[in-house]
Amino acid sequence: MLNFSFQNSTQIHFGERQIATIANEIPADAKVLVTYGGGSIKSNGVYDQVAKALENHQWSEFSGIEPNPSYHTLMRAVEQIKAEGLDYILAVGGGSVIDGSKFIAAAACYQGDDPWDIIAKQHPVDTALPLGAVLTLPATGSETNPAAVVTRDGTKLPFYALAVRPKFAVLDPSVTLSLSPRQVSNGVVDAFVHVMEQYLTYPVNAKIQDRFAEGILLTLIEEGPKALAEESSKDLEVRANIMWAATMALNGLIGAGVPQDWASHMLGHELTAAYGVDHARSLSITLPAVMKIRREAKADKLLQYAERIWGISEGDKQQRIDQAIAATEAFFRSMQVPVRLSDIELGASDVEVLLTKLEQHQMVALGEDKKITLEVSREILNAAL
Amino acid sequence: MLNFSFQNSTQIHFGERQIATIANEIPADAKVLVTYGGGSIKSNGVYDQVAKALENHQWSEFSGIEPNPSYHTLMRAVEQIKAEGLDYILAVGGGSVIDGSKFIAAAACYQGDDPWDIIAKQHPVDTALPLGAVLTLPATGSETNPAAVVTRDGTKLPFYALAVRPKFAVLDPSVTLSLSPRQVSNGVVDAFVHVMEQYLTYPVNAKIQDRFAEGILLTLIEEGPKALAEESSKDLEVRANIMWAATMALNGLIGAGVPQDWASHMLGHELTAAYGVDHARSLSITLPAVMKIRREAKADKLLQYAERIWGISEGDKQQRIDQAIAATEAFFRSMQVPVRLSDIELGASDVEVLLTKLEQHQMVALGEDKKITLEVSREILNAAL
Repeated sequence: MLNFSFQNSTQIHFGERQIATIANEIPADAKVLVTYGGGSIKSNGVYDQVAKALENHQWSEFSGIEPNPSYHTLMRAVEQIKAEGLDYILAVGGGSVIDGSKFIAAAACYQGDDPWDIIAKQHPVDTALPLGAVLTLPATGSETNPAAVVTRDGTKLPFYALAVRPKFAVLDPSVTLSLSPRQVSNGVVDAFVHVMEQYLTYPVNAKIQDRFAEGILLTLIEEGPKALAEESSKDLEVRANIMWAATMALNGLIGAGVPQDWASHMLGHELTAAYGVDHARSLSITLPAVMKIRREAKADKLLQYAERIWGISEGDKQQRIDQAIAATEAFFRSMQVPVRLSDIELGASDVEVLLTKLEQHQMVALGEDKKITLEVSREILNAAL
Repeated sequence: MLNFSFQNSTQIHFGERQIATIANEIPADAKVLVTYGGGSIKSNGVYDQVAKALENHQWSEFSGIEPNPSYHTLMRAVEQIKAEGLDYILAVGGGSVIDGSKFIAAAACYQGDDPWDIIAKQHPVDTALPLGAVLTLPATGSETNPAAVVTRDGTKLPFYALAVRPKFAVLDPSVTLSLSPRQVSNGVVDAFVHVMEQYLTYPVNAKIQDRFAEGILLTLIEEGPKALAEESSKDLEVRANIMWAATMALNGLIGAGVPQDWASHMLGHELTAAYGVDHARSLSITLPAVMKIRREAKADKLLQYAERIWGISEGDKQQRIDQAIAATEAFFRSMQVPVRLSDIELGASDVEVLLTKLEQHQMVALGEDKKITLEVSREILNAAL
């Protein structure tokens, strides 16, 4: 195990009817901006529950935070905060709304000239408005972590700041029952790949981290298809397990003390930025290809993954690795997401476009060992054709 | 899964040489009381590392916090804090030192007449001195949780207060290399039983909690005996896995959203208070007996435990449960702890003594379903003879 520092201070309220707890979590004298996305919270009852919980608070709202939230949209929320003198943000939505709200929280307190420097120049964020979250789409883990991804003019970039970690997060699995099958499958696949980025590297004998990562993967494999199947798609227990799995997948715990990869994400971000591919559907294409091209460097963990996740014990090492990759792809297909660039009608010429973007963004030394050069990225993307 | 609220805000610094981080974790103007136990930290170098880290702080020390820390000892530390105007506590030791320091932290700020009321009358603890911990004996999880157990005149009782949760905890596995085999085995067994109290109840389809609990159990089973074996007793990776397992066993995570038992602990506390049995060695006697007498109520989880932890799939349900209990006892014996009252030379007359104590302490409705009456406790203790 590697040395590490770990803290996750977010207060979690999990279960049905927990949205009411925000009344006590947000200070009585706070002036709240409720941020959300396209308005689905108005049709599924979440907006009404939030409004009820905030009936004794002063609050305004900002809607229209889009998937892969855009800098320009978010800056309009910052203007509203300044104009109205607001001092607390309640993000109601999935990872994009929460990520976007983290940037709003930081930008509202930013003292420099251009808040984009928080991302572009990784300017440190010492202060931010306090942020709470009501999660409606389990996927990114953003509800308890200090990370966010923001898009500006076709460039999708992350930032990290302890100051933007949500103070509290409400996880009510019943609100996920109204998600579309596509949103459900995207969430399960996103969480799955988050685990793999922290798990499928090289062994450092971190037994707890490995077992926890495997526990999340097994749960997603068991529950994910149930959430899509007609007969169990309204099973609240299934939704609860998926919701808690997605939070644990990226709250810092399984990644503490182990090497991390994130190449599938960096490649996937380019797919999303260039072609508008859903985040999870970019990852379901890039991860299997990364597994194939990086099979030597990842061999020990691939074999452990094969055995503990898929029960694969027959065949020589290469055969077991092949089976494990095939099982991963089969799981993704069962979750109704693409596993090849050709599945989304992209081809060899698009690989060149993606490589150009990677070079522009200086993504030239990816992976747990920084050995994924542009040339290796080309191999990976070709393997994904 | 049951509804739950969960938070664990303790900042963890894990790994070799992390004791130095306390220099930054404790405010520069704090007046620190360093609390510790019998002085082993002076021979194993931990005291010197702490002193070095605190070289720019004002600090005093209080030694002599004993196993099962005594109210009278702890109140002497409170007097010292008041006499010297101290305002921060750094606990350096195992669960007893940290538990005792939690009581000191609460009692030093207590406004009522008698600080014992914090425990005896469960008076709420709204404020406490800030507390940090340097863990030297992985076992109780006290380093990141808000619970403590204090003993007064033969009575061992718990209290819980968010205000006493350590602000930070340093977990350096290398400092555990100087522990005695008895301390190592006690720590592994204590952590194992902590998991079982939160896992071996009845199923609520909490898949992540179950998998995480099983991951900790498997790690302790794998690493515990290695820490005792001559050839691997100085293996730092083994110690690191045990240390992280013990913290995760009782930091609130695996118990969030699931029923909890704790009958083995309540019975064990009486054994310790009446006969001075090491805490872990009381649990290794009570847990197998609880498993035997409560086998019907716990049948579903016992079968899951049998299969996932011990790979037991042969035989009918009762046979598999028998095998799982036998495997648990064999593991405890391999960890060199007793599994019967007769192993520590107690007999039937002592069962009556323990039952009288349980009645005195109103421990008359124990277990996840409150169905362990005094009569059921008699059955359990008789099964432990």
